[in-house]
Amino acid sequence: MASGCEKGEKVQVGKSDLEEKILETATELFAEHGYVKASVRDIAKLVKGSNSCLYVCFKNKDEILFRIITDVGSDLLNELNKVISKHDDPVECLQDMIFTQILFSIGAAKKMKIYLEEQYQLPPSLKEKALDQHRQLYDLYYNKICEIEKQGLLYQKIDKVVMTFGIFSNINWVYRWLNPIGRLSVEEVALQITDMLLRSVLKNSPLST
Amino acid sequence: MASGCEKGEKVQVGKSDLEEKILETATELFAEHGYVKASVRDIAKLVKGSNSCLYVCFKNKDEILFRIITDVGSDLLNELNKVISKHDDPVECLQDMIFTQILFSIGAAKKMKIYLEEQYQLPPSLKEKALDQHRQLYDLYYNKICEIEKQGLLYQKIDKVVMTFGIFSNINWVYRWLNPIGRLSVEEVALQITDMLLRSVLKNSPLST
Repeated sequence: MASGCEKGEKVQVGKSDLEEKILETATELFAEHGYVKASVRDIAKLVKGSNSCLYVCFKNKDEILFRIITDVGSDLLNELNKVISKHDDPVECLQDMIFTQILFSIGAAKKMKIYLEEQYQLPPSLKEKALDQHRQLYDLYYNKICEIEKQGLLYQKIDKVVMTFGIFSNINWVYRWLNPIGRLSVEEVALQITDMLLRSVLKNSPLST
Repeated sequence: MASGCEKGEKVQVGKSDLEEKILETATELFAEHGYVKASVRDIAKLVKGSNSCLYVCFKNKDEILFRIITDVGSDLLNELNKVISKHDDPVECLQDMIFTQILFSIGAAKKMKIYLEEQYQLPPSLKEKALDQHRQLYDLYYNKICEIEKQGLLYQKIDKVVMTFGIFSNINWVYRWLNPIGRLSVEEVALQITDMLLRSVLKNSPLST
């Protein structure tokens, strides 16, 4: 199947198909062996193309990493913005955001591993752009916590920055331990983590009764 | 200062001093550049010794990583066991364990980064040994949660495994975002995170009133 490109041959699939294939292959390799150990040659070999074939789509390996990270970040931002647009009540909204992000993270576990563990490998200019996206994500949660505070429903003894990172830590750790085919379903675990987090930030959790 | 060893020379300091220096230097390099990018040559250069000098103390780079990981893991287990021996009340004990581990993690942030992010680079036999240590740590928390349950104080809607990983996620994430010289002191943040976690796992948190 001529799905990649051969040295000296014309690229046989559209650039975006090839791009997609490179990104998928790189995701597998980076998640399995770590970014540094996976080489452009390894990726090219699996895409069944030459090294130079990769350079049709990406300037270098850093750019491939950057694309994996910002693509998954942007998918996640889209998902959360869709959730936010659905809710007027900030508590229900936060609940849905946490639940949605956990399901998203488990569904995209390999990409999330790269997003969370390999970002520091990016060169400074790309790292800064990736961090901008992190900040947008952070702001969505922080702003929701501020809305809850305005309604007088927030537990007051914890700083809102600490709360926001507390939520992130739990959501971001879950791909490291949750077995999607384990004793509890992903949905059950996501509901329970959402419950834990809401109990920790609200004066009175609507789920606790 | 002849603190390292020169090629062909006798080692001029005790093996344990040299070992200590290699481990400190490797910790700095692994934390800064990641395990894969830091070479034995880089470490040797900074210890002011030859490559072979390192092999007096360690079989290879994997063994250095293994030692950093298991040393910090064993220090942490010791700290937690000291805390456990101090308390009869399981809630007070869990509170102290979380607080202590957060302070420990911030104090040993570089080692913790390696412990949490580079463990997967170990070869299988060493990884298995390192995971044994993780399990011991996990058991300390899980058993404490079981004690709390026996006293009828645990919030019942969350699975105890989910709770234990919820606690770990928050403790283990903190070195990634907490600025030790930020607006809040490390102790303040540690107290607030402890409060968050206790509120999330207890029926009624003693701190919430």
